[in-house]
Formats: sequence, structure tokens, C-alpha cells
Amino acid sequence: MKSDIDRYLKENNADALWVTGSAQHNPTMVYMTGGGHMTQADVIKKIGTDPILCHAPMERDEAARTGLKTINYNKFPLKDRLKLAEGDRLKAHSLLYQNIFEEIGLTSGKVLIYGHADAGKHYSIVNKLQELMPGLAFEGDLEDSVLLQAMATKEPDEIDRIRQMGNSVLEVVSRTADFLTGHNVQDDVLIKADGSPLTIGDVKGKINLWLAELGAENPEDTIFAIGRDAGVPHSGGTPSDPIMLGQTIVFDIFPCEKGGGYFYDFTRTWCLGYAPEEAQQLYNQVKTVYDKVVSELETGLNAAHFQDRTCDLFEAMGHKTTRQDPSIESGYVHSLGHGLGLNVHEKPWFSRKDDPSNTLVPGSVFTIEPGLYYPEKGMGIRLEDTYYVTQDGSFEKFVDYPMELVLEMKGGNS
Amino acid sequence: MKSDIDRYLKENNADALWVTGSAQHNPTMVYMTGGGHMTQADVIKKIGTDPILCHAPMERDEAARTGLKTINYNKFPLKDRLKLAEGDRLKAHSLLYQNIFEEIGLTSGKVLIYGHADAGKHYSIVNKLQELMPGLAFEGDLEDSVLLQAMATKEPDEIDRIRQMGNSVLEVVSRTADFLTGHNVQDDVLIKADGSPLTIGDVKGKINLWLAELGAENPEDTIFAIGRDAGVPHSGGTPSDPIMLGQTIVFDIFPCEKGGGYFYDFTRTWCLGYAPEEAQQLYNQVKTVYDKVVSELETGLNAAHFQDRTCDLFEAMGHKTTRQDPSIESGYVHSLGHGLGLNVHEKPWFSRKDDPSNTLVPGSVFTIEPGLYYPEKGMGIRLEDTYYVTQDGSFEKFVDYPMELVLEMKGGNS
Repeated sequence: MKSDIDRYLKENNADALWVTGSAQHNPTMVYMTGGGHMTQADVIKKIGTDPILCHAPMERDEAARTGLKTINYNKFPLKDRLKLAEGDRLKAHSLLYQNIFEEIGLTSGKVLIYGHADAGKHYSIVNKLQELMPGLAFEGDLEDSVLLQAMATKEPDEIDRIRQMGNSVLEVVSRTADFLTGHNVQDDVLIKADGSPLTIGDVKGKINLWLAELGAENPEDTIFAIGRDAGVPHSGGTPSDPIMLGQTIVFDIFPCEKGGGYFYDFTRTWCLGYAPEEAQQLYNQVKTVYDKVVSELETGLNAAHFQDRTCDLFEAMGHKTTRQDPSIESGYVHSLGHGLGLNVHEKPWFSRKDDPSNTLVPGSVFTIEPGLYYPEKGMGIRLEDTYYVTQDGSFEKFVDYPMELVLEMKGGNS
Repeated sequence: MKSDIDRYLKENNADALWVTGSAQHNPTMVYMTGGGHMTQADVIKKIGTDPILCHAPMERDEAARTGLKTINYNKFPLKDRLKLAEGDRLKAHSLLYQNIFEEIGLTSGKVLIYGHADAGKHYSIVNKLQELMPGLAFEGDLEDSVLLQAMATKEPDEIDRIRQMGNSVLEVVSRTADFLTGHNVQDDVLIKADGSPLTIGDVKGKINLWLAELGAENPEDTIFAIGRDAGVPHSGGTPSDPIMLGQTIVFDIFPCEKGGGYFYDFTRTWCLGYAPEEAQQLYNQVKTVYDKVVSELETGLNAAHFQDRTCDLFEAMGHKTTRQDPSIESGYVHSLGHGLGLNVHEKPWFSRKDDPSNTLVPGSVFTIEPGLYYPEKGMGIRLEDTYYVTQDGSFEKFVDYPMELVLEMKGGNS
């Protein structure tokens, strides 16, 4: 929670945090400002004091709307700084930050840097600023120990917003199922009204349309992968591929609120019409592991504990796991889940056994998504829901949707 | 053009470039890879050699699809690196890059860093890498002298893709005009079928829906600002504001291809039903300046020349400009335009008189968008189209749309 930021700063011997970049699709900036139409902003928060938002002159209204204290970049005109820097643009940029840091009274101590921005330019600017202000020590927060740690414990309004996205996802998934099963079939291929095959590109187009209708954004695209592609966890799917009966389709959808707000993450695996026996067996195994792991969820345990349990279970079924060999491409080849919020992937991480900061606690929001992948057999299975931990420590799925491998075709060319 | 990269590297005494981050909504990465569903990748290009794409194991198919030479991160397993780094995650990350740079044979020289990524983490990783590889000198490209300079000269297929986006924008703008004018009016307020006022939020919802239908994405939102908000260039508009007759509406739309591809940028200012005389006068002045500047466009001149000309013209009409005083908020308060491509704002810049790299040349793509802003009078005017320079040096507007301030209401509650 935001109220934890000062505590985490202190625990990490940091004196301030600095978030840079746009106010949209920039999770830490959205967290600190609430978002809005600012193309470039900086939020600086000294320990024990309120954050201060630095903004461009043309974006003063959007900045004021955040309710934060503000500093207009124009207070330190570029012209003057370029003059001082004798035309050196890098130095002129760094002088702006020097002016701002001095204005805020932040001239010594450790400053943690956040924000999704131009990595190269920021690298050079901070290095130059470091020369100008030797009393400050700039660092990235590699372990996500402060701001991302605060963000990992969600407050009730954040839980509500994630649930809202979950409801939108459910609506889209349900429309997708109806859309697919409403098609006629020729030689095991779904056929559009004009007689041509229905493709993955067609389906993704519909999904994007429905998401837009529901006010959501889909910045990282959807995974809708069939056959061999379904056997490669991050394959997005080939747009020209026709949709066929009897092949596993991994449908993984992870949109966010308009402007880069809270995400939801959800996966079902479907076979249209019928499922090959081997796909059904794999599906049953994934479902068994999903149910088992969910039934064992417990606060106070490290998320990585459940990744271990999942490996135990899949290995006992005879599948290879990345615990045994990180380079495998068949079997159980990824993490059980990940935290979710303003980032589609955030804390708690499921891969860090020895890091207690990834313990499941009230306010944790995370996915559970076991899967099995056999690209050489042309199939893959994944089942995923997003869960949260209530204030009394119980585990809740945000929204519910049936798990069934086979979707019966109804025809009619919907 | 891509084929210019080596020349620009050489001219800037650089030996390589390094692009990091996701393959979506990350302009330099999209330029080098063509995009695709890669959550984290690195492209490294040594001068005189082909770029190499480093990718996560699960994203090997997407990586292969780019046609680039690839290195799987898994070649240097995290486990081994964490061991070497004695559990220090920062050092383990930097070791990955050391391994990759050594594998590529890049151990000395200047490396320019690009990519939209976690600025703080990248800062720390590069600083550590710098310690591990003292022969390399890492730098951001503050002046956009290499990769962004190459991107500033578009090839025919890029021109085609931008025009395609322009066609989508035109379709949406035309639907928006029909949608607005199809509403009934009560006391100068547009009224929906249910009798409630039509709001900016309603209009933006429709715009997003139509963009999705046309396969476009709208990551930076639309400016649809009325009255005083129209008088503040970057105000996105207040979603709850009702749409009223006789007020200036600045409608600035800048979507991109799905996944973060090429943008288009377009603005019209409308008054529904009728225009106050003062708004019409300002509109005529902006239109006069627009026409004049467009008629004077010429290759071989610095873009900033036209910003100067625009200030001349507006000042002669009695308006204040930021050339006279950068802190003004009324009058002509921004640049005439900006380059456009995979970034909504890129080279050529219109504000750098002394930098010849912003000269208009065949392949340049840029906006022309003069405007006048009087927030205290509750009005603002901006007119914007995107232009490009053909191979024979003539200036072409991508797509055409009427410029008229007043849209006549037709009613009927469309």
C-alpha cells in the first residue's frame, strides 16, 4: 500500500524515490499520479514527505487534477539551462533535475529510480546528474524492494478495479466461445459466411473490438495459439492460421484499464468439437494440479513454495519440469504464476525461494497458471485464473468461468 | 533508413547500438525486429554487422519470425550466473549482458543504448556492466543522432503504413462528425436518446470502438477538449463535460498500428451548430498560417525555419508566441509540428535551429499544426495534418479531410 512506502524506503536505507516518464502505460507513474494525459512527468518523493509532481507547462491542468503538489518544468527554462550548459543538451537536461532536486531540498542520500522511459537517455542524464550532485546516490530497485513492494499489497479500491477488469475479460471470453462455436465447419476447419476459413487474425480482431467496447485496452495483445503454437507458452499465435476442430487452443487474455491501469490475466484451453485423447489426458492432469495447488494456498508461505509443489506434482505424473532442467521446451516449462496489478507481471514472484518479500499476504493479487507443453506433439494446455488474498487471509478467485476442454460446435455462422 | 545506421554510427564515433525492452510499444525495438510478442528482448548491432536478437526461451518462435540472428538467454542460465554472483541479482543480470557482449565479440568501443524500459533497473545494470567491461563506453543517444536519425527517413513501405493509419483516422473522424451532428439539442447541449447530455466520455468511447474495429490502437488516448480545455493544448478533455453548441472543440487523434507500430496524427477544431465571432476569427487566422506555411515548405531547410515563420505570422497578427516568452499560456504556445513514425513525436524536431539533422529531406514525415489558445476566453484552435516528402522532394499530405469550423447539426439522435 502507498502508506508502506516510507517504511520500505527506510528498510532499504533509501532517502527518496524518483519516478520518470509518461503518465500512461507506466505502472509506477500511474500508481503515484493516478494516470492522466501527461507525456513526460517526474514524481519525486522524499522519505516522510508528500510526493511532488513535475510537469510540462502545457500539461498543467492534467497535473493539477492529480491532487499532488506540483512544480512546472518551466520554472527552470530550457533556454537558460542550455546557456549555462553552453549548448550541451545532456548537461542542460541534467541541470533541470539538479534545479528540481535542490528546489525540493533533496541534495544527499540514496534515490531509487523508477519508471518506464527511454533507458539510454535516462542512463546518460542520471550519470551527468550524479556528477553535478555528488551527495546523491542513484540506484535502480533491482529487487523491487520499495515501490513495487508497496504496490504488491492492494487496497480495496484496487481489488475492485481488478475485479472490474476480470468481469470484462469474462464477457469477452464468453463472447469468443459463442463466436467460435457458432461457425459452420468444413473438413474440420471453421468457415466464415463467405466460405473462407476463420483465422486467428479474425478472432483476435473480434476480441480487440469487444475489449474496446468494454472500455479496456489490450497493449500486450492476446495469446490465441493453436496446435504447435499452443505448445510454446508465449507464442501469440499465427494470424493466418485457420481455426480447426480437435486442436488445442491456448487462449490467454490480459488486457488493462484504458490508459494503462490495472490488468487482469486469464487463460483457458479449448478444443473445438472434440479432443484427441492425449490432449484430454494432459488437460486432466493440468486441471488436477490446478485444483490441488489452489486447495493448498496459504498465507505466510512464499509463492515459490507453490511453484515447488507444482513441480512435485507434474514430475510425479512423469513430466519434465524446468526445476530439473531450465532449458527444456517440453513438459512444465514456466512459473506457476506471478503477481498482477498495474503491471501484468509483478510481485509476488514465484521463482525466488529465499526472498521472503514474495510471501502471500492479505492484499496479494496473483495468477495461478499451471500448464503442459508438447510442441512436438502439436499441443499445449494452460489454465489460469487471478486470485487475491482477503483481509482475513482467505483466497478468492476474482471471477469464475467454466473449465472444460471441449467446446461443442453449434454452427450457424454467427 | 536502416541502411543508414552504420554511417550514423561511424559519424558519431560509436561502435554498436543496443536496444532493450519489450517488442511491443517500444519504437526502436519495433524498428529493429518488426515487433511481435516478446516481453523482453535485446538487439545488439555492431557497426558493419547484422543485428542480433537475444530472446527468452519461451519466445523463441516469435524471435525466429523476425528473421534476425538470435541468441537464446538460456545459453547463459540464470542459475549459473546467480551462483557466480554469489546471489547478487544485479550482478547476475549484468553477467548475462557480459556473456552476450563477449559472445558477439563486442568488448571495446562506444555502445549507444536505446529502448523504452525500466529506467532505474537499466541504469544499475549498465553501471555494473560498465565495471565488468571497462573496455566498453555506454551512452544514451541524447541528440537522436544514430538510430532515431535513421528512423527519420522513411522508406516506401513505412510511408504506406502511415498512410494506412491516416485512412483509419479519416474514417474515425468522419464517423465522429456524423455521430455528433446526428444528435438532438436541448438548451445548446447535445442530448442522447435517453434524454441525458452527450459527454466527452461518450464520444471518446465511440472513438476507441471505431479505432479497434479498424485494427488500430490508441495507447496515448485522444484529445477531445471543449471550451476552456480546448485552450490548453495538451488537455485531454474532461470525460464528464457535456458537448455544447458554439464552443470550440479541439479533436486531436493519434492512434497507432496494433502492438505499437506506426502512428498518424491529425487535428480539427469544430464548433457545433454555430461559432462565436471571435472563435471564427481565430480559426481563420490559424487556417491562414497553416496554408501559408504549407505553401512555403521546402526541402533542404531546417524544420525550425518553419517554426520561426509561424511565429512571424502569428506575431504580425498580434498574438504572443513562445518565441517571445516561453512561459506564456495564451497565444501560439507550442511547436509548429514534429516528426512522426513509430513514435508519435520524433525527428525532425521543429525547435532546434542550429541542428542541421532536422532538415526536411525526401522520406521525412512530420506534422504541421499551428494553433491559437486563449484559455481565459474559453477557446482554442488547432489544425493539423501529417505530411511527407516524396523522393523527388515534393510535399504531400497523407490523407485529406475538409477544414471547416462549424459543423451543422442534423439531429435525429444517431
